[in-house]
Amino acid sequence: MEIERKFLVVSEAFKNQAEKKEKIVQAYLNSHPERTVRVRTKGEKAYITIKGKSSENGLSRFEWEKEIAIQDAENLLKLAEPEPIEKLRYEVKIGQHTFEVDEFSGSNKGLIVAEVELNSEDEKFEKPEWLGKEVTGNKRYYNSLLSKNPYKNWEE
Amino acid sequence: MEIERKFLVVSEAFKNQAEKKEKIVQAYLNSHPERTVRVRTKGEKAYITIKGKSSENGLSRFEWEKEIAIQDAENLLKLAEPEPIEKLRYEVKIGQHTFEVDEFSGSNKGLIVAEVELNSEDEKFEKPEWLGKEVTGNKRYYNSLLSKNPYKNWEE
Repeated sequence: MEIERKFLVVSEAFKNQAEKKEKIVQAYLNSHPERTVRVRTKGEKAYITIKGKSSENGLSRFEWEKEIAIQDAENLLKLAEPEPIEKLRYEVKIGQHTFEVDEFSGSNKGLIVAEVELNSEDEKFEKPEWLGKEVTGNKRYYNSLLSKNPYKNWEE
Repeated sequence: MEIERKFLVVSEAFKNQAEKKEKIVQAYLNSHPERTVRVRTKGEKAYITIKGKSSENGLSRFEWEKEIAIQDAENLLKLAEPEPIEKLRYEVKIGQHTFEVDEFSGSNKGLIVAEVELNSEDEKFEKPEWLGKEVTGNKRYYNSLLSKNPYKNWEE
């Protein structure tokens, strides 16, 4: 089980605090929320990740991941549902926690979200000043749904 | 790319010729014919397998497979689409080729099919007397569709 909270990001100040930055390309072999199958390349590595249904409060979800060869991932990305998601991932350590901040490009350009993984649903963590509104459990921000309904098509 | 031909089996004579027999349980994280994602336990081993769209003649198909831990497979089977397929797989060597003969149980009881993998679409192979009608490319016999429309529901 993975426990995560997700937030919008309201400034680019996080970039100065980032310890790592990698390009991610990912697409879905299934975007069904009860059995999401994702293929991802991240820097020089690649993964297949399967996620189950979210808990009712949207905080936790079964997750299984396995590293695969990058060439295999490139072949599997060709089978995937349109369209792939591209983003830069920044890792930003704040206090005891590492935020993964995703700056999307392509059809989701303009969207920046931060995720923090927790050990329990009520675990406390320090909030940096660039952290905005919480969107945990809001399906519109699921990457699997951004692939079908990208940020550029959203109406405010 | 995997090149395979599939046949109905008209007698149980193959059982005397089998070199190996294993129980298979499998289910689908996606049964879409363009990106099938299958989780399988086979004896003491387990696999995740992803297949692409079949060629027009139904003979060849992209296939990617990775062995996974059996405990992981059991967790992933819980996420899968209903319903799992159960079958006994017999491996039967005939001349230079090995036939995989699947004897289904559960909702597909009564169905027995044999598959032979070839190196080219026109490769010759010896046909045993228990081999019946060819059903290569007939989608009704895809395991992914047997999971949704099992043999017991078919009308002749």
